[in-house]
Amino acid sequence: MISKSQISFVKSLHQKKHRKEHNLFIIEGSKSVIEFINSKFKIDTIFFTANVSPKLTNLSATVKLQEITEAELTKISTLTTPQSILALVQIPKAITPPSHLFIGTYTLILDGIQDPGNLGTIIRTADWFGFKNIVCSNDTVETYNPKAVQASMGSLSRMEIFYTHLPELLNSISVPIYGALLTGQSVYKTQFKSEGILILGNEGKGISEGVIKKIQYPVTIPRFGEAESLNVAASAAIFCSEIKRNTVK
Amino acid sequence: MISKSQISFVKSLHQKKHRKEHNLFIIEGSKSVIEFINSKFKIDTIFFTANVSPKLTNLSATVKLQEITEAELTKISTLTTPQSILALVQIPKAITPPSHLFIGTYTLILDGIQDPGNLGTIIRTADWFGFKNIVCSNDTVETYNPKAVQASMGSLSRMEIFYTHLPELLNSISVPIYGALLTGQSVYKTQFKSEGILILGNEGKGISEGVIKKIQYPVTIPRFGEAESLNVAASAAIFCSEIKRNTVK
Repeated sequence: MISKSQISFVKSLHQKKHRKEHNLFIIEGSKSVIEFINSKFKIDTIFFTANVSPKLTNLSATVKLQEITEAELTKISTLTTPQSILALVQIPKAITPPSHLFIGTYTLILDGIQDPGNLGTIIRTADWFGFKNIVCSNDTVETYNPKAVQASMGSLSRMEIFYTHLPELLNSISVPIYGALLTGQSVYKTQFKSEGILILGNEGKGISEGVIKKIQYPVTIPRFGEAESLNVAASAAIFCSEIKRNTVK
Repeated sequence: MISKSQISFVKSLHQKKHRKEHNLFIIEGSKSVIEFINSKFKIDTIFFTANVSPKLTNLSATVKLQEITEAELTKISTLTTPQSILALVQIPKAITPPSHLFIGTYTLILDGIQDPGNLGTIIRTADWFGFKNIVCSNDTVETYNPKAVQASMGSLSRMEIFYTHLPELLNSISVPIYGALLTGQSVYKTQFKSEGILILGNEGKGISEGVIKKIQYPVTIPRFGEAESLNVAASAAIFCSEIKRNTVK
């Protein structure tokens, strides 16, 4: 049983301004909820129906548990087909990416990605390839957007996502700076160094001017056909794959 | 000016059964409309607002042109932010993929892809890499779904998309059959032959049993991190890239 005020509270979290106000975001589905329980994130409340499986274990004592009906779940869910379980998770305190973050590894930098599905898919792909951190420009879509959370398929629970002013950050970085530009060198001919960052730009406009200036190694995915561009999450997948193919022996 | 019955006619085409009944689908945005005008597809009607640019040229005499207001466009559009132009395009007659289609080239085979955004993104990626044909199982999402059309970003105008019963088709194919399976050989260690097909499976269930049996070369994208799987459009991008990197000198 869920009260009317609870319904409107959870529904308010479908919107960014209320997520920010309450420092909570929504995750849905057993797989995601279990992954977030076993992560550094703090679960606030879990709403579940009688149909939920598997049963939840490893829950911290502070988690509020509440059984609700399928009809009630439909009212608070962000999905057209709700998945028996929905949890509210605390948004961690935003921090600036520390400079040691970039040493000895590869980090993705996203400059103005607008589509939450693209952001979530990039998080999932980065997690598959063993990247640990993603740094976003301040105008990149919010990572706690329900569509981004859903597309990340639980990978958000394992990835550190930072938001910052990119030109300033890039001034302080000592590792090689690669950037996806149509005019770059073929990614197939690029010998990626053992550490670095890779910058991917906005879906329509690409990488912004202030950020382009900081790129040391422009790289591109060769085109063999006629499409004008690749989807940014498809590009990210190819770049992550090429970096790993090159640098992991 | 658009009549009430025209509004409800165009809106009916948002749904598959009415697209099938009238053999028409919807495309939106200047870039897409121009690409379809310059393709093998036949345009039936173009609705445009006073804001549309560039002006349309190269139109066949049979195309019905109709200026409408922004408010009217909002009523018939499939998008939350309509783009000044919307066209109705004839759905071409479905044909069985001819067996010569597969010779001397690479073809993508999609087995049960459900998400129209994934299908559209795969079409766009395939077009970027110069693939000409995609063959889908009969239970793959319809390629004229507005979300698939939109995600293809005009590439649908250049790609041949077939729907067929896959096990039967695969029996008649003479080129090497590669399939994306988690248990396959690393794609980085695979020497792709000069022609072939690559099969990608459903988002949750993968490739169906009857189709798995026909795979001669199971291939996989190595995992370096913790995500359980990759998004199918991200996988498709990496496989298309690897096939081209291997086979184009």
